[in-house]
Amino acid sequence: MSSLFPSQWSLVSGGITAPHGFWAGGISAGLKSTLKPDLALLLVPENSVCFGAFTQSLFRASCIDLGQRSIAKNKGRIRAVLINSGQANACTGEQGLKDTRTAIRELAKLLSINESEVLMCSTGVIGERIPMDILVPSLAEVVKSLSSEGGDQAAQAILTTDLRDKQIAVQANLGGKIVSIGGMAKGSGMIHPNMATMLGFITCDVGIPKNIWNEMLSRSVQSSFNAITVDGDTSTNDAFLAFNSGDTLSSKHFDFLEEGIQKVTQFLAKAIARDGEGANCLIQTEVQGANNDHDARKLARTVCSSSLVKTAIHGCDPNWGRIVAALGRSGIEFDSRFVSLWLGQFQLVKDGQPIPFDRKSVSDYMKLKMKGRYMEDDCISLKIVIGAGKGFGTGWGCDLSQEYIHINADYTT
Amino acid sequence: MSSLFPSQWSLVSGGITAPHGFWAGGISAGLKSTLKPDLALLLVPENSVCFGAFTQSLFRASCIDLGQRSIAKNKGRIRAVLINSGQANACTGEQGLKDTRTAIRELAKLLSINESEVLMCSTGVIGERIPMDILVPSLAEVVKSLSSEGGDQAAQAILTTDLRDKQIAVQANLGGKIVSIGGMAKGSGMIHPNMATMLGFITCDVGIPKNIWNEMLSRSVQSSFNAITVDGDTSTNDAFLAFNSGDTLSSKHFDFLEEGIQKVTQFLAKAIARDGEGANCLIQTEVQGANNDHDARKLARTVCSSSLVKTAIHGCDPNWGRIVAALGRSGIEFDSRFVSLWLGQFQLVKDGQPIPFDRKSVSDYMKLKMKGRYMEDDCISLKIVIGAGKGFGTGWGCDLSQEYIHINADYTT
Repeated sequence: MSSLFPSQWSLVSGGITAPHGFWAGGISAGLKSTLKPDLALLLVPENSVCFGAFTQSLFRASCIDLGQRSIAKNKGRIRAVLINSGQANACTGEQGLKDTRTAIRELAKLLSINESEVLMCSTGVIGERIPMDILVPSLAEVVKSLSSEGGDQAAQAILTTDLRDKQIAVQANLGGKIVSIGGMAKGSGMIHPNMATMLGFITCDVGIPKNIWNEMLSRSVQSSFNAITVDGDTSTNDAFLAFNSGDTLSSKHFDFLEEGIQKVTQFLAKAIARDGEGANCLIQTEVQGANNDHDARKLARTVCSSSLVKTAIHGCDPNWGRIVAALGRSGIEFDSRFVSLWLGQFQLVKDGQPIPFDRKSVSDYMKLKMKGRYMEDDCISLKIVIGAGKGFGTGWGCDLSQEYIHINADYTT
Repeated sequence: MSSLFPSQWSLVSGGITAPHGFWAGGISAGLKSTLKPDLALLLVPENSVCFGAFTQSLFRASCIDLGQRSIAKNKGRIRAVLINSGQANACTGEQGLKDTRTAIRELAKLLSINESEVLMCSTGVIGERIPMDILVPSLAEVVKSLSSEGGDQAAQAILTTDLRDKQIAVQANLGGKIVSIGGMAKGSGMIHPNMATMLGFITCDVGIPKNIWNEMLSRSVQSSFNAITVDGDTSTNDAFLAFNSGDTLSSKHFDFLEEGIQKVTQFLAKAIARDGEGANCLIQTEVQGANNDHDARKLARTVCSSSLVKTAIHGCDPNWGRIVAALGRSGIEFDSRFVSLWLGQFQLVKDGQPIPFDRKSVSDYMKLKMKGRYMEDDCISLKIVIGAGKGFGTGWGCDLSQEYIHINADYTT
């Protein structure tokens, strides 16, 4: 039992294959110019329920359109997800669509399932087609890599410029039955709320009716993947897929299960923000006292996405003026005379006005939190009281560094 | 007659004091820690009409609230504007408001005018009060610096981290009468549409009725100061003030005058984007074929404000995928199959799909345009056809560089 989760959900290993019956695998097919893993496969048990949330961009890769249609057509019963990294296969027109269809068809044959039961996710450079002469012959190999312990391999194979894999699994006893939830994600750049500029996958080995599952996951996405930002850009290929399959859970455990799902989605979302391109720290902004949760979340995300806030934090500079400026332009109504603000345990603003603080102590706190950025509890914490309302919301982001510019000024050429 | 303005409006010197009857001045009062000019004054002829547009931030400096009230109270008849640079005097509560009132009262006494005829604009660090023991004794000196040729001094004194002053004046013969329009502005950081994260001032020596003047200026602000972005952040102190005073102009010249005003406001807005913190070039994005002008402007601004587009341009990388990704997440409806895109004279996307282009030639074009960024015609030009509608709009921005991070990671400490 880890201190990470003080409830009855405890951390276990295995990632997306920790839940019973889910198999995964990953290989280096040669789709990337490096020798890194670049093709992953998730095999889902029969009678699964799949929830999907996809990018809201009007420029969407064809795999996104196809996936959304298949989930609807099959009422959520999906058996496999193929994921390639290196080429986004977005803005590739008719040929790109044909390629996706070919990959799905060939994989369905190998797995002896229907084409409409296969989803595909692509991540990488926009406008680049997947080299089909490499992909198609690799499908047999990625099928062969499937195992009940393949979560780790899959989590590696979906990465692009990520520095670390992002996976987690938790387990709890629900009325005598051990239930597991697993998850993996990739992020790095083009990360901004609105579902969700990243790939994310959740598995769960207990049966939940489709409508309940969809509601649970919709709520969880709001307070996790849609609450993070790296650079304000939404991708053409973002997808989040969540599967459950198993004996039906008693409805009395639904709230507790949702708590576990939220832990998993928030862990993954924070891992993405923490590992944003060029990032040195995770920034967590909690807003309370807003008129409603939506307003609070929007305020939190506006602060986390401000370039001036992000650069100030990068410089370990407690420049609260930029934080209040970001709040002021968020588009959310509030009375500036009732705003208070804390950075770590240090209060910087009270009732809309600065109060004296020891600049060096606050800066030292920020420096300390930068050092251990991959630790779960290490984040630069902003707490904002915006009024006397009941709305509460949290947003996560990262600092903006010279390294972000370096990575992004020279990505395709 | 300069080639800059092929119409009958020709460039002249003098900035905001080019129009007859407007006096200005600027001094180094010692408000800044450097010895740079930091206090400016604009004296407006009697019977003026003042248009004012102010920040939409909910955290507004008290000078903004006072100014808005004075313009309304006096029906646009304003005689003087005092501008200090170094301290924003925002989030400084009751004492900050008192300080602004004191400065206005003392200046009104010196000029023998009503307090409500004096406006004040402050720019600098948020949360810092103006050192009144320096400001008040300096008022007599800044009044003494007033002259009919003081536009240049004033334009220098309003700058903060700007590398260059931003001023212009144009002149034309309107039915036998020589009419001049002058302007100055400051920008640099916290620059994003929505009026307008900067200070801007326009003077004009011909009389225009208040309602006509306000309409003209509102339109001009939309297609100039509200069409630029540097870093997406809106300031607490943004103000744009435009004055006219003189013999009433015949209504048959209104359209032509508005054309001149638009040239001046667009010149100043582009100068701000061009000189954005850490910028190496001006990015101009023209969108046509949208459903309406509003949609076109929003698409253009979304492209100009994308960190990924800005860093790609910084790297002279024709990464069109990031441009279409920005269009796709703008919130504006369009059909991606009808989108075409040019960078300079090079077409990169046709009907939603990439077309072959010589990467090196496009990159060389971008490198060339970076070199001469202060030249009026030198900008990195993006042209986007988004559909078959009649909406047209232009946005301006700048690249995102390591220097931006450097400037902003270490501003107050």
